[in-house]
Order: sequence, then structure tokens, then C-alpha cells
Amino acid sequence: MAAPPATRLPPEFDRIARHFAPLAGPAGLGLTDDAALLEPPAGRALVLTVDAMVAGVHYLPDDPPDLVARKLLRVNLSDLAAKGAVPLGYLLTVSVPVDTPDDWFARFAAGLAADQAAYGLALLGGDTTGTPGAATLTATLIGHVAPGGMVRRGGAVAGDLIVVTGTIGDGALGLAAARGQVPDPDGFLAGRYRLPTPRLGLIAPDVAHAALDVSDGLVQDLGHLCRASGVSAEIDAGAVPASAAAFGVGGQGDRTAWLATRLTGGDDYEIVMAVPPGRLAALRARAGALGIPVTPIGVCRPPGPGEPPGVTVLHDGAALTLGPGGWSHF
Amino acid sequence: MAAPPATRLPPEFDRIARHFAPLAGPAGLGLTDDAALLEPPAGRALVLTVDAMVAGVHYLPDDPPDLVARKLLRVNLSDLAAKGAVPLGYLLTVSVPVDTPDDWFARFAAGLAADQAAYGLALLGGDTTGTPGAATLTATLIGHVAPGGMVRRGGAVAGDLIVVTGTIGDGALGLAAARGQVPDPDGFLAGRYRLPTPRLGLIAPDVAHAALDVSDGLVQDLGHLCRASGVSAEIDAGAVPASAAAFGVGGQGDRTAWLATRLTGGDDYEIVMAVPPGRLAALRARAGALGIPVTPIGVCRPPGPGEPPGVTVLHDGAALTLGPGGWSHF
Repeated sequence: MAAPPATRLPPEFDRIARHFAPLAGPAGLGLTDDAALLEPPAGRALVLTVDAMVAGVHYLPDDPPDLVARKLLRVNLSDLAAKGAVPLGYLLTVSVPVDTPDDWFARFAAGLAADQAAYGLALLGGDTTGTPGAATLTATLIGHVAPGGMVRRGGAVAGDLIVVTGTIGDGALGLAAARGQVPDPDGFLAGRYRLPTPRLGLIAPDVAHAALDVSDGLVQDLGHLCRASGVSAEIDAGAVPASAAAFGVGGQGDRTAWLATRLTGGDDYEIVMAVPPGRLAALRARAGALGIPVTPIGVCRPPGPGEPPGVTVLHDGAALTLGPGGWSHF
Repeated sequence: MAAPPATRLPPEFDRIARHFAPLAGPAGLGLTDDAALLEPPAGRALVLTVDAMVAGVHYLPDDPPDLVARKLLRVNLSDLAAKGAVPLGYLLTVSVPVDTPDDWFARFAAGLAADQAAYGLALLGGDTTGTPGAATLTATLIGHVAPGGMVRRGGAVAGDLIVVTGTIGDGALGLAAARGQVPDPDGFLAGRYRLPTPRLGLIAPDVAHAALDVSDGLVQDLGHLCRASGVSAEIDAGAVPASAAAFGVGGQGDRTAWLATRLTGGDDYEIVMAVPPGRLAALRARAGALGIPVTPIGVCRPPGPGEPPGVTVLHDGAALTLGPGGWSHF
């Protein structure tokens, strides 16, 4: 009798077995079943987020596959970080052109493995498909918090300080640098675009009334916090921290255009938060222990009469108009 | 002072607010935050699965958007059904060309709403992006089971009956019908391709040692069950149930080609399972109450000496060779 036909695995399954199955945690069941089986951590609530990345939209098609994989995890980890959640695991979809070489998968999986180790993550499940179009990658991240421990967007009150982590604007300048449009002698800016750093471990209800990550541009994302909280924010453009590399790209020239790019550009993956003034010292202490810079850049106030909640950017004492603001994928 | 720039929402957020936010359950927080906050059901384990659907690969680009949405949920619900899980909620990614009309989103969301109501699901979160390529949709489904209540692929033992739900082969014939390649007078076959029926509520450890859903073709998917269980399966091609519409398409002509298409084609989203003979009556009783047809089609046996676990298809008493088997997206 001939060997049963179904013992030969098609390439899709062979690829999963070789590249992705070694990344699965216990709940992922070796990626040999239809679904993952996850025992939720006792007494904790789950925090869930998903982001898609499309080649040519969210990353450059010739970006190194390991960095693409790590960015995919990190943009989602950044959401968990802003909510005060501890990462646990993720599900993955990889839709790529059918002629994608095996080496791409190997390097992509190596990137996943590196950041799984760095951030204590396990692969729970996934799906790989071909596509006639642009590669499209998604990760659904699962984290957990103590009951009541998630920091929302909507908790800011008048008088809270607006605080950001790290430096703002490197993502937008880094995309321009990766495209060769601005100088970036040591690759710092392009590196910030290609591989953001999720600010895990900092945010919790004891230091922040509200928080979210800066993915679509500081002004737009802070606007989300304001609308959800029913407050307005005034920030001082000159106080928004810039990296030395960002200063090197136009920081001495047309300050307004440079500020507009930095304050409305996307891909920073820093955190903007509303901090009660009495908790700033505690925030600084925790941030110091984690090696995360934190900088107050403004304050929350009640919206003026008839004014919707929103963001005012002050520059040399005058309000700066930045256009519709932020980075929209549509 | 000018109105703050960030109070104007870009189209991406406006679209989420209008079409998707009304679908969010309590854990989805109105889709106004970075992440969902889910209290897992007490004393239950979570079952997690994700599938991607690409236009032109997994559905036809001009398929009605409401049916595309419902198929996206149902292919994932089918995985939960095969594991014995109760559906709870889902996260969604929608990557579509930037010129996708608003009406497409409205109809897509209407399809999601219909099947959320039908299956007790809530939207927990998501991401919408533009793409320069083919539309790519993913859903991450979350269900739950009692501890020990998930039915795996690997539990079949020699002597178990192989049983399938519904009819097999309608998905493959339905794709051909949707493309106008085979007659389908009343649209039954195309309907089976465009809108599968997840067989929820049937599978549990008391009636099945092993199960998975038939998404890539019966022979290939049963092969997964065999390899995971370390058994071989012999099925009788003539016993594999066909719909009347499938009989109408070649069931009277070249029986071997017709069988090969039905037994190796994809998109059935029925369940194939290994049932201890003593539990067949209990399975039939539950299936009858749910209105789900169940049909024994074969039996598990130990692999022969030196033979890897696999599937043998018998037709008129002889082994049928079906080629490499199943439908691979690569």
C-alpha cells in the first residue's frame, strides 16, 4: 500500500514547525493544535491589544526582518506599558508574498525570539498565509494587571502635570533618516524608528491619573487623553525633550517646522501621562531606577467656556498652530 | 486663541467611532483606550485562536462585505467549536486600500454585528490601517472551557470512530461555483463557501477523544489528528457525506475526481473527530438536539510496522491516491 498522502506536510506547515513552533510557550501547545490553552494568572485582569503593520506603510519593505519582528512586538508592548500591564504572550499573523524566501522567515523568527527573551513573552498561536499584495503582520498581545491597576486615558484632572518619557520626535525624523532625507551620521534616528523601546514597568495608578503611548504624534495622542478626560492641556514646545541627534537635524534652523515635525510625527512609542504634582517625585524615583528619562512638559486645565477639550502648544509664550496634527494612516 | 488642532479627528478615528465602537462590549472600553480590560471568567481556562483572511486568497474581492466579516468570525469560531470552547470576544485588524468607501465599512460592521448577536461575541479591540496591497483581515478569538475541557488533536486511540459533522466538499465546490466554474442553481454551494457554519456546542471530552475543524481539506486535517495522536485512520470515501448540491455537481460523472476535490478541498469548516464507539450514541443525541448532522466515516488503527501515522482513503475497497492532499496557501 502506498504511503498515506497526508503524511507529507505542505510548506506552510513545515515553515511553522521549523521557525515558529520553537517560540511557543506551554499555552501555545507547540503550535500543533487549533488554539492555545491559557490559564489566566490568578486574581489578575487581562489587558489585550492588537496592532497591524503593513510593508510600505508601517515599515520599509527592505527593513531587516528581525527588526520588523521586534518592532511588531514592541509597538504592542508599548500599549501594554502605557496601561501598566505586565506582558504575558502573543498571537501572530504573517501574510507575506508567496515567494518570500525561507531566510526571511528565519530572520523574522530570530527577531521574535530575541524580544520574547527580553520581555518575558511566549508565542501562543498564529496564522501564516500568502498574499498577492503588501506583507501584513499583526500581533495580539496579552498582558495582565491587578484588579483596578490599569491606567486609562480618561483619568486626568485639571492641575495634573503632562509628563513624557524619553525624547519626542525621533520616530518621525528617523523615518526621514531611514529614507535618506535627513543626515543621521551614527544611525541613531533610523534606529529609533526601526526599533522603539517600550517603557514597561513605569506606569501604575499610584503615579499617573491617565496615560497612553505616543504612536501617532504627541499632539494627537495627548488630544485623545484630553478628550477622554474632559480636560485641556497646555504644553511648552521648548520643554518637549529632543535627542541630541534630533537637535542635529534642524534644531538650529527653522524651529517652527522642526517643532511641528517632532510634535506631530508618529512612531515615538514613548508614553505621555497626566501626573498629580504630588506624585512627580515618586514617578521620578521609579523612572530613575528603570533608567527611563521623564520630563514635565505642561499642565492640564479645565477647557475654556465653549471650548472642546484639546491641546494648546505654546512656543515662546504664543500658541503654535500645527495643522490637523498627528499621523493618520488614512 | 485658535481652536486646539488636535480636537479634529482624522478619518481613521472617525471611522472607528462610527462603525466599530458600537460593537464593543464592556471589556472593549468603547474602543477609546489603547487596550481592552478583560476579567477572565472565574474558574475557566482561555482558548485563543487567530486567523487571517486575504482578499483574493481566502475570499473573493467582490464578496459582499457583510459576508466577509461574518466569514472572518466564523472561521475562527470553527476553531473554538472544535476545541469545545464557548466564545467570548475578539480583537480585529482591518488593513484595506485607502480608497475603500465608507459604505464598505458600514456593511462590514453590519456583518460583524449580526454574528456577534448570533454567537454571543463582543468586540474587544482592534486596529485599522491602510494598505497599498490586498485587503487583509484578522480576528483573534477568545473563548473559554472548564479546566481539562479542551479537546485536543492528539487524543485519538486505535478503535475510535472517525466522525464528521455536516457535509464535506461543499467549500471547495462552492469556491468553484462562486467563480462560475460549476453550476449552482440555487446558490447553495457558493453560500457554503462564503458563509460557513461553526458547529458550536457539540464537542466536549465526554464524546470525542480528539477533534479539529476541516479548513484545509478533510484528508489533510485528519492527517493532523493522526500525527498528533500517533494513530492511522482508514476512511470510506463513499461514507463521507455529500450535500445534494454537491451530488448535482459531478457526483454522477468522474467519481474519483469528484471525490478528490471534496476530500482534499478546503473551506468546509465542519469538524472531524475521533469518537470512542461507546460514546457514539451520546454524540448523536447531543448533535440531534443541536440540529447538527454527524456521520461515522472510518476508524482509527495502529500504524502498520514502519508506517508513519496517516490517512488511508478506501474507495470500493481499494486505497485511493489523492495526491499530496489538502489545500495549502503556499
